[in-house]
Amino acid sequence: MDISVVLFEGFTPLDFTGPVEALQRIPEYSVRYFSLCGGPVGNGKGLAIETLPLAGAKPGILLVPGGFGTRRLVNDGAFISALRKAAEESACCLTVCTGSALLAKTGLPGGMRAAPDKRAFDRAVPVNPNVRWQRRARWVSDGKFYSSSGVSAGIDMALGFIRDRSGEEKAREIADSMEYVRNSNPDNDPFALD
Amino acid sequence: MDISVVLFEGFTPLDFTGPVEALQRIPEYSVRYFSLCGGPVGNGKGLAIETLPLAGAKPGILLVPGGFGTRRLVNDGAFISALRKAAEESACCLTVCTGSALLAKTGLPGGMRAAPDKRAFDRAVPVNPNVRWQRRARWVSDGKFYSSSGVSAGIDMALGFIRDRSGEEKAREIADSMEYVRNSNPDNDPFALD
Repeated sequence: MDISVVLFEGFTPLDFTGPVEALQRIPEYSVRYFSLCGGPVGNGKGLAIETLPLAGAKPGILLVPGGFGTRRLVNDGAFISALRKAAEESACCLTVCTGSALLAKTGLPGGMRAAPDKRAFDRAVPVNPNVRWQRRARWVSDGKFYSSSGVSAGIDMALGFIRDRSGEEKAREIADSMEYVRNSNPDNDPFALD
Repeated sequence: MDISVVLFEGFTPLDFTGPVEALQRIPEYSVRYFSLCGGPVGNGKGLAIETLPLAGAKPGILLVPGGFGTRRLVNDGAFISALRKAAEESACCLTVCTGSALLAKTGLPGGMRAAPDKRAFDRAVPVNPNVRWQRRARWVSDGKFYSSSGVSAGIDMALGFIRDRSGEEKAREIADSMEYVRNSNPDNDPFALD
């Protein structure tokens, strides 16, 4: 199974390195990094990652992080169009934090539930009001779409995804090997703002 | 304050992206990425990061992740020598997981305590038996040296480092903004192998 991570200028590294750390501990999963046009992509804070052009991503697991770059990117037609195609073709689509706003903008997951970063919630909702945005959730899943709340929540979502596909024992084994104190309940959201 | 992350072929991304995510939320901290010779450096699993030559790192916070590449690197004299110089000049030196074995190999922290990855413990100890290796610790600090246990423990160590320098309120605020369920007790090690 291929994991395709979609990067862009202004991504948040932990949004994808956390989930990838969990997912790649399953030997059959292999990871590649993409951006719209390929080439080095920066987080705006000193980190630049080599990427391949998104059009070359294979169907499999699509992982979309968030970051401050999403504010501009929701209005980038070429990016949103390429993301929509990749998400349509994917077997599963995982979004973290404000990555959910990017996927929502594609219009693809009409009735999808999403749980973006608490601090960006009010900015994400208008992107696609048809999404059933969740203000209180560590992560939510809806068919092939998984979306998590802010930053660290992506690790719990990835472990939940692994549990759904490979069983609880595998998810626990991976969390332990990462020495990660896991939150295995998607509804347990210690950071919900009431 | 400059944060210099030391990369090498076969690094573990989450070992540094977790701590950096916490540290860079302090506005005065800025991050740059280094390797012995500079240029793109890979984790062996599809991720390649642009780096600068380590000789150009400024004194400040040195952050050394672990990864499978450390097995080879403890025997790489040129790397260990450059790491020793950078660590000597640093104001603080943070190591995660098997990154502690690299620092131990420099011989620098003679009496330093270190708490590496549980699964690599028996491999790390012979690298420098003068280090007071801790089998049960989320992280330990000893003067300017901080070292954490495996992977995710680095995030707790970074938040502990922030608490020591900028106070508990700042550490809590940053953990919350990352939606991270923090372990604030360095002696609370849920993954200790007895």
